[in-house]
Amino acid sequence: MEIAHPYLLFLGDVPDALAAKTGLGIVDWRREWCLGQYRLDGCKADAGLPDMAPKQAAEAGAKTMIIGAVNAGGVLPEHWVDSIVAALEAGLDVASGLHMRLADVPEIRDAAARTGRHLRDVRHSEIAFATGKGTRRTGRRLLAMGTDCSVGKKYTALALEKGMRDAGFDADFRATGQTGIFISGRGVSLDAVVADFISGAAEWISPAAEPDHWDVIEGQGSLFHPSFAGVTLGLLHGSQPDAFVVCHEPTRTTMRGVDTPLPTIQQVIDMTIALGRLTNPEIRCVGICVNTAALSEPDARRELTEIERAYELPTTDPVRFGCASIVQRIAREFPSA
Amino acid sequence: MEIAHPYLLFLGDVPDALAAKTGLGIVDWRREWCLGQYRLDGCKADAGLPDMAPKQAAEAGAKTMIIGAVNAGGVLPEHWVDSIVAALEAGLDVASGLHMRLADVPEIRDAAARTGRHLRDVRHSEIAFATGKGTRRTGRRLLAMGTDCSVGKKYTALALEKGMRDAGFDADFRATGQTGIFISGRGVSLDAVVADFISGAAEWISPAAEPDHWDVIEGQGSLFHPSFAGVTLGLLHGSQPDAFVVCHEPTRTTMRGVDTPLPTIQQVIDMTIALGRLTNPEIRCVGICVNTAALSEPDARRELTEIERAYELPTTDPVRFGCASIVQRIAREFPSA
Repeated sequence: MEIAHPYLLFLGDVPDALAAKTGLGIVDWRREWCLGQYRLDGCKADAGLPDMAPKQAAEAGAKTMIIGAVNAGGVLPEHWVDSIVAALEAGLDVASGLHMRLADVPEIRDAAARTGRHLRDVRHSEIAFATGKGTRRTGRRLLAMGTDCSVGKKYTALALEKGMRDAGFDADFRATGQTGIFISGRGVSLDAVVADFISGAAEWISPAAEPDHWDVIEGQGSLFHPSFAGVTLGLLHGSQPDAFVVCHEPTRTTMRGVDTPLPTIQQVIDMTIALGRLTNPEIRCVGICVNTAALSEPDARRELTEIERAYELPTTDPVRFGCASIVQRIAREFPSA
Repeated sequence: MEIAHPYLLFLGDVPDALAAKTGLGIVDWRREWCLGQYRLDGCKADAGLPDMAPKQAAEAGAKTMIIGAVNAGGVLPEHWVDSIVAALEAGLDVASGLHMRLADVPEIRDAAARTGRHLRDVRHSEIAFATGKGTRRTGRRLLAMGTDCSVGKKYTALALEKGMRDAGFDADFRATGQTGIFISGRGVSLDAVVADFISGAAEWISPAAEPDHWDVIEGQGSLFHPSFAGVTLGLLHGSQPDAFVVCHEPTRTTMRGVDTPLPTIQQVIDMTIALGRLTNPEIRCVGICVNTAALSEPDARRELTEIERAYELPTTDPVRFGCASIVQRIAREFPSA
């Protein structure tokens, strides 16, 4: 699944920034791919991009309009269909991370056929994956694990990609979810893969590479989440990471969406190693990434210091305070060949 | 997915019994549901049932023709299509465990529409599963775990269902794979569920029940198999078993289809408890089931004795020697309320 950029971000008429977090996430990490935003009357989200209609965006060189917002329920509102048809008519491809397929809407399907433009449903891969093999591949891999879902694994992986590149590493972010796919222009939405092929899809996402190349792989779910642990384990086995970080949100009390209590960071480290060594006996933890967005800066720094002392591992909020300590740890533990 | 019986078993013209193992498995466990077999010229498999054509079978009361054989590659041979159309014309539903859908063949789709009969593709569930919740349900559950794929987990669960019923338990086999679905008439082929819904589908398969009711759940894969461990973990979390058995094939040296070495029985016990207690803190191992088909009877008995001594758990080949010791253990560990 390759998504052509530059992008026009469609934000619809959503009532707040949260509903546009896909679009805002793309701007956070790939501002240079984003030509403009397309908003309907009443839109309360703002990605800070020039407002433009599809025709203007196409004339300015845009290749794809990304549906960067969701309405309640995750379905496509009927009054967004005209905007999507207009984008196709203007010569743009249209990409969506919704569960439904764009082509399931007859007007959109017909417009795509008429204009010859592509509809990119990133939750639906057309690739026929093989089952996972567990065979060691060349190249280095880092995977973001978590004490829970939605604790910042994607942002952590993106911050590590940037930090490693800045430090001279040859590193690529590898997307395993829809927003990550828009940010990197490729990848597989793992949660939508058929169960038998989870680890096979993870192997596909992160293929054999040069010995010093690092794939920094977006994590999914948690080994301790009763809804999604199977996806997490298949991703761990298929990624065969040399290194992992544990992502944590310190104000949670139960796992997202369920009544299950949160595991400790130590439980996540131990279980990741116990399970991950099946496909990489050398797997090790290189740091802890804490999402401190809910804490004041002094509280955040205190929390990080406490966790760092308790675990004796580099600990940071990679978005707020950078990830130099973890990158240094990686450089020390994995000297280039 | 409910499959109406009695069945007519279609064995095609397969070259050996292995290719008809789905059909033969149904006869092993549900002889009373099987009216006859339908074989084409040259068929080398024999389920020991009266040979009959679809018309005869329908007249004798059959409701469904099961595709009980596969040819190399797992696709539907063109020369089987006429037989399937004939079954629909005779008034039978047709059920298949192939990866492809029966309705993808235009002649079959048209015949089903014309006759109003159902096509049952047991690998493709039409149910919209919820994500798993991890909430405790009433009723008891036993899950068959394994050191590998294809070590006898389905036969073990079926033998335990029978043994428990014979001992007065209220017990039901719960199918998680295609042959199991034909044997029980219902279930979900877990390997074909979308990854996000594995544990949710497992929760659906084994719903809340009377406090003394036992679901005996067919296992899938292995926590130590690099291709399928994600499915196994989702099934474990969704099943929230009170009890599990470990199934083992003593002559294997590597996991099926990959180069990964086999785990020990102890590793499977420990990892099943470590992961399974997320959704059932009381989970415990109640026995070891060894598939001794490759061993002489003296060797088989010696192997069972050795394992039983090493692990201090009831150990048997449930198909060859019955499972009374495990059923007694369950009765002792889980006295009825």
